[in-house]
Amino acid sequence: MSHGPSAIERCRRLAAFTETPGSTTRTFLSPPMRDVHRTLGAWMEAAGMDVSVDAAGNLRGLYRARRPGARRLLIGSHVDTVIDAGAFDGILGVMLGLALVESLAGRRLGIEIELLAFSEEEGVRFSMPFLGSRALAGTLDTEVLAARDRDGTTVADAIRAYGLDPARLAECRLAPNAAAYLEFHIEQGPVLESLGLPLGVVTTIVGQSRHELTFTGSVNHAGTTPMNLRRDALAAACEWVTAVESLARGTTGLVATVGALEVTPGAVNVVPGRVRASLDVRHASDAGRIRAVEHLLSAASAAAAKRTVTLGAVCKLDQPAVACDNALTDTVAAAFGEAGYTPHRLASGAGHDAMILAPQLPVAMIFLRTPRGLSHHPDEDVLPGDVDAAFEVGRAFLERWEQAHG
Amino acid sequence: MSHGPSAIERCRRLAAFTETPGSTTRTFLSPPMRDVHRTLGAWMEAAGMDVSVDAAGNLRGLYRARRPGARRLLIGSHVDTVIDAGAFDGILGVMLGLALVESLAGRRLGIEIELLAFSEEEGVRFSMPFLGSRALAGTLDTEVLAARDRDGTTVADAIRAYGLDPARLAECRLAPNAAAYLEFHIEQGPVLESLGLPLGVVTTIVGQSRHELTFTGSVNHAGTTPMNLRRDALAAACEWVTAVESLARGTTGLVATVGALEVTPGAVNVVPGRVRASLDVRHASDAGRIRAVEHLLSAASAAAAKRTVTLGAVCKLDQPAVACDNALTDTVAAAFGEAGYTPHRLASGAGHDAMILAPQLPVAMIFLRTPRGLSHHPDEDVLPGDVDAAFEVGRAFLERWEQAHG
Repeated sequence: MSHGPSAIERCRRLAAFTETPGSTTRTFLSPPMRDVHRTLGAWMEAAGMDVSVDAAGNLRGLYRARRPGARRLLIGSHVDTVIDAGAFDGILGVMLGLALVESLAGRRLGIEIELLAFSEEEGVRFSMPFLGSRALAGTLDTEVLAARDRDGTTVADAIRAYGLDPARLAECRLAPNAAAYLEFHIEQGPVLESLGLPLGVVTTIVGQSRHELTFTGSVNHAGTTPMNLRRDALAAACEWVTAVESLARGTTGLVATVGALEVTPGAVNVVPGRVRASLDVRHASDAGRIRAVEHLLSAASAAAAKRTVTLGAVCKLDQPAVACDNALTDTVAAAFGEAGYTPHRLASGAGHDAMILAPQLPVAMIFLRTPRGLSHHPDEDVLPGDVDAAFEVGRAFLERWEQAHG
Repeated sequence: MSHGPSAIERCRRLAAFTETPGSTTRTFLSPPMRDVHRTLGAWMEAAGMDVSVDAAGNLRGLYRARRPGARRLLIGSHVDTVIDAGAFDGILGVMLGLALVESLAGRRLGIEIELLAFSEEEGVRFSMPFLGSRALAGTLDTEVLAARDRDGTTVADAIRAYGLDPARLAECRLAPNAAAYLEFHIEQGPVLESLGLPLGVVTTIVGQSRHELTFTGSVNHAGTTPMNLRRDALAAACEWVTAVESLARGTTGLVATVGALEVTPGAVNVVPGRVRASLDVRHASDAGRIRAVEHLLSAASAAAAKRTVTLGAVCKLDQPAVACDNALTDTVAAAFGEAGYTPHRLASGAGHDAMILAPQLPVAMIFLRTPRGLSHHPDEDVLPGDVDAAFEVGRAFLERWEQAHG
């Protein structure tokens, strides 16, 4: 039985529910989210699930066990998108969970399965990610509810406008019998493709540091100012950017990126007086990440000092790594083997809902190969055979987990 | 007799004639230029000059010789400004010429002196510099007359609107008896200040090359893309920027600047896919400049190739160096000595009207120290003692030149 094509077809169909005709953009509780809830909700009901939308806008389907009091396995991912998105980021994980439940054809197990379609992971509308899974983890505080989107609408207003009640957010919390969370997600990177593997098992969601650096020198005339009398902010910043690349290339598992760099005044014939640059550093080991950041801030100071340029650095994010559960991940790896696939273990360089739920219950993640590593882009794609492989691994996992917990 | 204060005071008074109350902006044939012509024209007449405005809007004052048929010495600079300018760039050179004529107190010489207040040097209004001096050199062609400013007005329209006749531009040409051109100008750089010298003698106006480089790599997720699978356009560009600085620091007389650098998409968590950067290279020797450009384009190719990034480079300007006249410059240097100043010789890193006139007749330039090298800025300044020194050198030069040519 081939599941890849139908899951892919469903993803493409849901991608047509968009705020922007011709491309896919579907932010938190936007009008097209109702279409997703209606269509996906109908599929879930047809598969035998009890379907509801919680106060955070998460669509949840419960596939009951054959007896009360059973332990609950959660399978899910998110159904919101970035702006001008592809069809698979997040939503493919929900379609795979749906396909697994459908494959039971109504047969009840010794465990419950809850399928979760999180309302918000990308953080587009309120510049705050993970609103959906934070509601389940119980970490959506009052401050979050008061945040405003570009139109001035608060999170609480958006929830009310969708016909939901922000006062009932506490009811979104994970059920007491929730015992594990499994998330399928596209890798969004090139590693599995470069290894020729359809799937991977995620060990850790890497920690992340973000800094904003400001190099301040002197604005000078590019023709009349000799090299030895310059305080060139861009020359300092560029020496540092090469140090960032060089350290990361030389350190296993480290990625470090200068993605934004703005030059002031930015004229052809003017020596740059100020450069603002971003630094994004990620590593599976928090100690390794912190060591890298320290090294790179020192390198920035040194590159600045050489040119009598001053340096300012502000930390914007310091997010520790989150490990997937060892035992659950071993069960996933065993399911890989049973289905005939190599359980290649890799870290996730991007954040996922699993990271938010990890403090609450054991989590595991399965990555699907992403052609060209291309994600957050209309050309984002998956291979049907890879989706079939993910389904087979999911089936094997489900049997093992039921055996252990049913 | 102290001439610094009065020349400085006059510059500050003329700086009040502006298109933008509260700051100084005076572009080609803008309304405040009429105020400059009226005020400055009256000073010139009071000094005994025949005053006219030519068809290019240049204010010209002829101080006749004691007999017809004498040779003519030109002294001048420009009276337009950049946006939000200082009070001395260009106009101080005209005030010094005026002070020299005034110091004759009506006494006629064996030579004529023509004082030139060029209408346009900065190129702000029509994005084309040197309109005033090009009219004297005879290089204002029809193409230039058809250029439009931001309001759609052509150069020809602007000339007509000022009450002048573009059909008479040919009459702006240098007089047949014009035998030399002397320009005083602020250095607009920090060299004289760093040497503790009030004045310098310009040997050459350096040649200039401008290129636009485009580094094209791949946009990738900063978290999910390992370092060895990246094609980071910014890392390539930055390695090259450090090579630009390093070559210029190691090459006498070379200045090379990356002043503009734009990163696309420019997001914290995205590996840059494209960088557009400017390159400005200047050297007194054209061969030295061309060699430097070749070296730097090769360095850009190498930095790009290392990362499988592609490089595009477009030449935007290739302007040869213009030498000041050796004999005339020696006369200026002798005048320095006579007035008690060291004739420190230096190249001009910026373009000047003298450069436009150099193919037509011998030119020489005298630079005045610029505090902090600050120019094209409201805080642009000069020291009164330096202006006195320039006047004394000018007096000595005038005597020598009259002796040789009168």
